[in-house]
Amino acid sequence: MSPILRFLDELYARHRECRDGNVATYIPELAKVDPDTFGICVATIDGHVYEVGDSRHAFTIQSISKPFVYGLALDDHGQSAMARKVGVEPSGDAFNAISLHQDDGRPLNPMINAGAIATTGQIVANSAERRFDRILAMFGRYAGRALGVDEAVYESEARTGHRNRAIGHLLRNYDVLVEEPTPTVDVYFRQCSILVTCHDLAIMAATLANRGVNPVTEERALRAENVESVLSVMASCGMYDSSGGWIYDVGMPAKSGVGGGVVAVLPGQFGIGVFSPRLDKQGNSVRAVRVCTELSRAWGLHQFNPPYCPQTSRRHSYSCADRQSTRARCRQEVECLRAHGRCIRVVEVQGVLSLATTEPVVREILACRDGLKCLIVDFQHATGINVPAAGLLADLASHLADDDVRVLFTNTSRVPTLAHGLNARLGENAAAAALRFDSLDLAMENCEDDLLRSAEPDGLTAARAIEQSELAAGMTPPELAIFASLLQAQHFTSGETVMRQGEAAHSLLLITHGVIAVHVGDGPDGRRVASFSAGMMVGGIAFIDGGPRSATLVAEGDVECASLERTDFESLATSHPTVYARLLRNIAVSLAMKLRLSNEHLDLLSTRQR
Amino acid sequence: MSPILRFLDELYARHRECRDGNVATYIPELAKVDPDTFGICVATIDGHVYEVGDSRHAFTIQSISKPFVYGLALDDHGQSAMARKVGVEPSGDAFNAISLHQDDGRPLNPMINAGAIATTGQIVANSAERRFDRILAMFGRYAGRALGVDEAVYESEARTGHRNRAIGHLLRNYDVLVEEPTPTVDVYFRQCSILVTCHDLAIMAATLANRGVNPVTEERALRAENVESVLSVMASCGMYDSSGGWIYDVGMPAKSGVGGGVVAVLPGQFGIGVFSPRLDKQGNSVRAVRVCTELSRAWGLHQFNPPYCPQTSRRHSYSCADRQSTRARCRQEVECLRAHGRCIRVVEVQGVLSLATTEPVVREILACRDGLKCLIVDFQHATGINVPAAGLLADLASHLADDDVRVLFTNTSRVPTLAHGLNARLGENAAAAALRFDSLDLAMENCEDDLLRSAEPDGLTAARAIEQSELAAGMTPPELAIFASLLQAQHFTSGETVMRQGEAAHSLLLITHGVIAVHVGDGPDGRRVASFSAGMMVGGIAFIDGGPRSATLVAEGDVECASLERTDFESLATSHPTVYARLLRNIAVSLAMKLRLSNEHLDLLSTRQR
Repeated sequence: MSPILRFLDELYARHRECRDGNVATYIPELAKVDPDTFGICVATIDGHVYEVGDSRHAFTIQSISKPFVYGLALDDHGQSAMARKVGVEPSGDAFNAISLHQDDGRPLNPMINAGAIATTGQIVANSAERRFDRILAMFGRYAGRALGVDEAVYESEARTGHRNRAIGHLLRNYDVLVEEPTPTVDVYFRQCSILVTCHDLAIMAATLANRGVNPVTEERALRAENVESVLSVMASCGMYDSSGGWIYDVGMPAKSGVGGGVVAVLPGQFGIGVFSPRLDKQGNSVRAVRVCTELSRAWGLHQFNPPYCPQTSRRHSYSCADRQSTRARCRQEVECLRAHGRCIRVVEVQGVLSLATTEPVVREILACRDGLKCLIVDFQHATGINVPAAGLLADLASHLADDDVRVLFTNTSRVPTLAHGLNARLGENAAAAALRFDSLDLAMENCEDDLLRSAEPDGLTAARAIEQSELAAGMTPPELAIFASLLQAQHFTSGETVMRQGEAAHSLLLITHGVIAVHVGDGPDGRRVASFSAGMMVGGIAFIDGGPRSATLVAEGDVECASLERTDFESLATSHPTVYARLLRNIAVSLAMKLRLSNEHLDLLSTRQR
Repeated sequence: MSPILRFLDELYARHRECRDGNVATYIPELAKVDPDTFGICVATIDGHVYEVGDSRHAFTIQSISKPFVYGLALDDHGQSAMARKVGVEPSGDAFNAISLHQDDGRPLNPMINAGAIATTGQIVANSAERRFDRILAMFGRYAGRALGVDEAVYESEARTGHRNRAIGHLLRNYDVLVEEPTPTVDVYFRQCSILVTCHDLAIMAATLANRGVNPVTEERALRAENVESVLSVMASCGMYDSSGGWIYDVGMPAKSGVGGGVVAVLPGQFGIGVFSPRLDKQGNSVRAVRVCTELSRAWGLHQFNPPYCPQTSRRHSYSCADRQSTRARCRQEVECLRAHGRCIRVVEVQGVLSLATTEPVVREILACRDGLKCLIVDFQHATGINVPAAGLLADLASHLADDDVRVLFTNTSRVPTLAHGLNARLGENAAAAALRFDSLDLAMENCEDDLLRSAEPDGLTAARAIEQSELAAGMTPPELAIFASLLQAQHFTSGETVMRQGEAAHSLLLITHGVIAVHVGDGPDGRRVASFSAGMMVGGIAFIDGGPRSATLVAEGDVECASLERTDFESLATSHPTVYARLLRNIAVSLAMKLRLSNEHLDLLSTRQR
């Protein structure tokens, strides 16, 4: 059994003994509820629901309908139009007080009855029936199932709801409602009589926690930009006259109803639904308040005490003097990069980038601004980014580009939310400045090649003669002549496959000009994992151990090689055993050096992960 | 110039033209302020301050003092004692209204004058002077510098503060204040007259954002457990009669003062201070409200619209059938692990673990519960964890242990906040269950060894004879006899250094019994990076390429080896060239195989990082 469920079970068992409070009786029908029913549900933002007790027992939603209908009105009209109809200030008065702005008759907030009736009146529809249908359909999207109405409660509300009808007429008097108010008040009665379970409430809350998208059905119930507004009125006025105490103790936006339900929302994390009909003096379910208070403390859910935030999104920051791409280069090139690589800076970011975590990254980059020629920002480990953070990076790129710094963003396509935010800002500011690469390694190679070209315009990329290669080390001139006589020149055009992973190995190649890339895997799983420059041996592993080729090699641009066939090599064992042994030894040395490099790289990767 | 500062500059330039509102005049001295002064400061939780405009201009703190003094009272008395003196509900009335609970005279909240005076009266001290000294010292801890009082404003307040004196007597009447009230009201006047700059306000806010610790001085200004309470009253009642609208529009706990200052706090992220003396009808600085509203929108700071939260803290989850430790093992052992490794599950977690991100990890582990014998949870990539998340994992460990699943937590010491939270819970619940390892690799090796012992109790760990080793492959019996005659038996006791990184290499070793571990680096930087079982060759790299030893090898338990000296090996080149070539080839093959493994491991590491 899940420890989460076990905790909820204990919570349920402890609070079911509590019989404090009284069921609502202001509507005769409400008084008929079984006062002992009790359910607790917690829904995650991936739609898993933990439920204990009477979690599928139906009850009327009552005032919990208010923030949801307010959200629908915001979707219909937008924030500024709604602000002219209903305020967002706590009233300090009871839920059924007629708290209207003195000058324009606007109800103080949408959580008191006056504000809720005014809100219901804003739902766009050409009839009261259609208005209610839209409201019911909306609740269905939140709950992920079709909901119905408790007709008996509705009729009871309608029979006794004189005060609410009076509010309707007052709102009509102030032109907050612009139609005959009675049908709107009637829709309000019906909306309060919608039947939900606390399982529904948890999913509805999780939908708000999930930026307005039902996590089970994946259907949108509320526009993303209106979620914060709905949660704000819940936070300031959701729990009747103990809203301040609720935020103080529980720290989550919430709404209660006299039916005994409470919804609470922890944005981005959980939706909570609790049901128990006995109410306290303020009209909130006694058990629900206690359960939510305990849950918040035990699970650390108070919004003003969030789990530790990362201070910076920077994962690693280094220059090409400290770390180079996976391109295998001859010694002179490596030395040149180590000497001059400070002008190339790589910053790897990680996690979810917000403005607060991106600001230190930008600050750090600006601190090593001197002599910077190329900046690479890699998003491979980023799991999300919001628009302000993307905008900040785009601004930085744009301004660095004005100073002739080359800015490359890599792996941006991996970040689900990046494409939109960053591209939108880049479109405005810095599209040309921040060239995007699919891999950090490619971007680093590209910058390294630039640096090598500017450092030594000719020479470093020229072909190495076979006699200067690692394979010929230590050979006497006659031995070298025998070795060279076995080599065959081979040419590869750009994009041509030089060797294929899994094939039998019949030869070894010495690159005399150009670049060969190493790919592992095929098709969409294929990845370019390294590359080799002129002077390097490729294909040695399978050549020596007789296994299949360990990777696919592809020519990048025109490539010239010298090829040694294995049959020719083997024949040396009897015809020229000293040349054979020398070659074997040189191949073994080359493998040993690669193994050293590979182990260093592994060590670097695992150290950097610490 | 930083894009952040550029943005604040633009904001400043745009709003300095706004001359709406009026400076406070209810105290004659306040009316003397220059109405055009204007400063904006943003402090990060690592203590960096971005400041524009009159950021170092001093003004009186006024009502901004209220939440901070309330925090000091909470530190003195705790939440429940303070709840008996001051409520936490918005009053719906003006700041100077005398909103007291009808039954016990408690002020409704600490942000109205009555609540603030009641709060000041709770600060523990044996005299009014000492009380004020404590308050002033507290503000100094928040601001990170010694603060002073504007005596002229104080005298002006004291001369005109009759209403506040009346409040003091009313509070005395209800025994909310238990001493003569006038000195307390006087301390309140002085507290309101403390001089701050908006640079100070930003640091004070960042201190609240940083869980009560000043990010510049690293001095604690408020107990961590009281931070959420202070922020809660700021959120519900901080902005006078537009607190609801502020949360709706800006979405951050904040407090304003009639001196023209506003502090706003984004927990875990930013502290904001804005100063401009012209006030709106509610008593809030006009420019400050507009600046904070724009900042919140542009930077995405609304608390109810947080940046995307990670859904799960799971980084990787795999069984030992899919991936093994770095121990180099002979083929039979590897095959056994691949066949039976499903019973060992490794879950790597990452980032900041809260209950919401840990719950899916626990759910996933429970879903592969069947046949599970060993669970390893690795914290190498975790950057933080709160107590509830640690408790959830401890609960899981405890219950799995009851079902005889071995639970290992690795790298827990890397998580700054883990030690306390997890150890505290483990102490209660599962100390014995969750053995802790310093490295994931060691834990995996340990579980693999267990599995191999249970699968094949004898045989797999027995010494391999030299003639079955990879070095002897393909040799004829006479060749083998020549080879074997060159080998010398060597014994190492547990912990003995077999080879040392950087030393010259004179020999190659074949392990015939036991385990040898590979360490890279010395002293505190030293790391165990791999290990070798019986049957494997070690020391081959430096032996063949003539370079220094690439790593340090250490015997783990008793180890038996067969050693081949390089001089003996080299002499074979002339004395027995075919044995020499065979050995060279076998060494090259061994290196090639290791290079394959190493490349696979590299590929795995970089793939998994995607």
